[in-house]
Amino acid sequence: MTHTQGVDTWALQWLDPPAGPAIVLLDQTRLPAEESYLMCRDVAELDDAIRRLVVRGAPLLGLAGAFGVALAAYRGEDVAEAAAVLSRARPTAVNLGWGAGRALAAYRAAVRAGPDQNQDAERPGARAALAEAWSIAEQDAAASAAIAAHGLDLVPARARILTHCNTGALVSAGEGTAFAIILAAHRAGRLARLWVDETRPLLQGARLTAFEAGRAGLPYAVLADGAAASLMAAGEVDLVLTGADRVAADGSVANKVGTYGLAVLARHHGVPFVVAAPMSTIDLAAAEGGAIVVEHRDAAEVTSFAGLAVAPAGSAAYNPAFDVTPAALITALVTERGVARPVNAGTLHRLDVCQPARAAAPADVCLER
Amino acid sequence: MTHTQGVDTWALQWLDPPAGPAIVLLDQTRLPAEESYLMCRDVAELDDAIRRLVVRGAPLLGLAGAFGVALAAYRGEDVAEAAAVLSRARPTAVNLGWGAGRALAAYRAAVRAGPDQNQDAERPGARAALAEAWSIAEQDAAASAAIAAHGLDLVPARARILTHCNTGALVSAGEGTAFAIILAAHRAGRLARLWVDETRPLLQGARLTAFEAGRAGLPYAVLADGAAASLMAAGEVDLVLTGADRVAADGSVANKVGTYGLAVLARHHGVPFVVAAPMSTIDLAAAEGGAIVVEHRDAAEVTSFAGLAVAPAGSAAYNPAFDVTPAALITALVTERGVARPVNAGTLHRLDVCQPARAAAPADVCLER
Repeated sequence: MTHTQGVDTWALQWLDPPAGPAIVLLDQTRLPAEESYLMCRDVAELDDAIRRLVVRGAPLLGLAGAFGVALAAYRGEDVAEAAAVLSRARPTAVNLGWGAGRALAAYRAAVRAGPDQNQDAERPGARAALAEAWSIAEQDAAASAAIAAHGLDLVPARARILTHCNTGALVSAGEGTAFAIILAAHRAGRLARLWVDETRPLLQGARLTAFEAGRAGLPYAVLADGAAASLMAAGEVDLVLTGADRVAADGSVANKVGTYGLAVLARHHGVPFVVAAPMSTIDLAAAEGGAIVVEHRDAAEVTSFAGLAVAPAGSAAYNPAFDVTPAALITALVTERGVARPVNAGTLHRLDVCQPARAAAPADVCLER
Repeated sequence: MTHTQGVDTWALQWLDPPAGPAIVLLDQTRLPAEESYLMCRDVAELDDAIRRLVVRGAPLLGLAGAFGVALAAYRGEDVAEAAAVLSRARPTAVNLGWGAGRALAAYRAAVRAGPDQNQDAERPGARAALAEAWSIAEQDAAASAAIAAHGLDLVPARARILTHCNTGALVSAGEGTAFAIILAAHRAGRLARLWVDETRPLLQGARLTAFEAGRAGLPYAVLADGAAASLMAAGEVDLVLTGADRVAADGSVANKVGTYGLAVLARHHGVPFVVAAPMSTIDLAAAEGGAIVVEHRDAAEVTSFAGLAVAPAGSAAYNPAFDVTPAALITALVTERGVARPVNAGTLHRLDVCQPARAAAPADVCLER
């Protein structure tokens, strides 16, 4: 396997036979209290881990889908069924189905081509599926670097950046999406302060983004999601920067619940609202934001915490995992191919059809053609 | 004591000698898991309880300030110092100093007048301070009923009301402020749904408002604060209704952090945003919102939960307890004297100078003169 050393994915690792085949996941539900790992030996275990958010975040879910299909192929499970199961594990996260689909296509193409010197006759297609998963990981790392380079142009000097949820190395084979831009800003001396929304109900901001920010030595502070408005009113936010879980063809963005409210607040206060996502997050099959299915999760995520009830027994809860922000509220969408600004069907289409820009190229390079 | 049976204050009770003098507080930090009571035998214990939010909420803090001054008088503590200490316990909550000041004035007047048949020579002024505290409780219960009557006129049929923090019987000698209106709407058959913001960081919505809503049989659901925007976008909110901790002379409202963001979102979605508060919450000495001191609380309220760290050790936090909503974003302010609509210095002044309206009078009665 030439690819196994190619990318260091902290949050998701593939384990070759004979110790594997298996997928080893950093259990993100236990951070920051403990750094423990979960070994998934079949698709059912991986599916459960995805649903429980042991592994999460748009780009990383693309890897999970692809490596999951490879795992099914190595184990002799029904590969098409595995891809279907994994694609359904989180309904809003488009990257899951995208990654699983790419690995499935590679698997099928290899099976059709028949065994050759690169194929293991006992596991037809498995090596091809795995190679595709590694290829996705490499592309994701490259996309992360390109997003950081493009996005840096949108960060002013001495920037106080507000972010929501978690978009760093925990969700990527690289340094992430929005968080990769934040790291680039820090390295360029432009980051005065990172405001970290705690991101209820599952606190991915407080638990995960603060964890990554602390490791990277960023000047950060955590806040309750409801406190962001007062920060903006006080003139303490220069830029809001988030990731995305699915981008519709009209530029509407589904992202962690709370994102849409931030976009409204940013508009009210004249603060730029920027979304960073790889092209794999853009779903041209969803014509508009209303076409995006929003996952609703268990009430217990809101009504209890760490097993302790925080609302009376029997309380109902409204618990969407995501919300949808209309393109008109988004100042710019940063992808590995450049920056769409304004965000609309036309600018997204131009990103989609043009060639990948080099990571070092200036932002908007694609759009300027 | 003719007043001791006058008002049933669930959350705060005065205990006469010989068992007292003492103030017995329902410990709101332990709800809904347990209904336990804390006995405060001196001002220092009460001050600590106020700071820890054992007792909280604008109207109830007025009672706490007044009964605290009576407690100091009965115990022979320095009464003026007690009033000063209690007034400082929560800097944004204007009712604390207002209640303490009223009891202190009654105490001083009685001391000046000298002992008579209603005075205990060993505790000059103590009975007068206590009588004033009971008078405040009676007025608060009456104000709550009047607020409910006035506010009901602002609730449409089949209303889906979103509320933030806790404004019911736990913070009042009556049924509260915003929550009293919600109860009135329920009894009038107008409440289709109560959306309860959980209200981070201390979850007064999930813990306390849901508790009161459940006891009252209201159709309610709890949500993460960040999910409110998507509810409004989906057309699921007809009215946002909150309380207030201090209202400036220009109509700006300081209330639990997150309120200002809701007001911006309500404006964006064309949803009425209504604040309910007794006249005692209006601070004409604060000319405008910027003059209101916002209390900042310990980072641990955000970075830990029930003793469990939810952010990495050493994380900084931005943790204001309140934010300030400009009057221009507030559709109406409901008080016991009527409704100010629009909310501005002129309409507040007219409420302040006119006579109290009867509880059964129509809303805006004061303004229509």
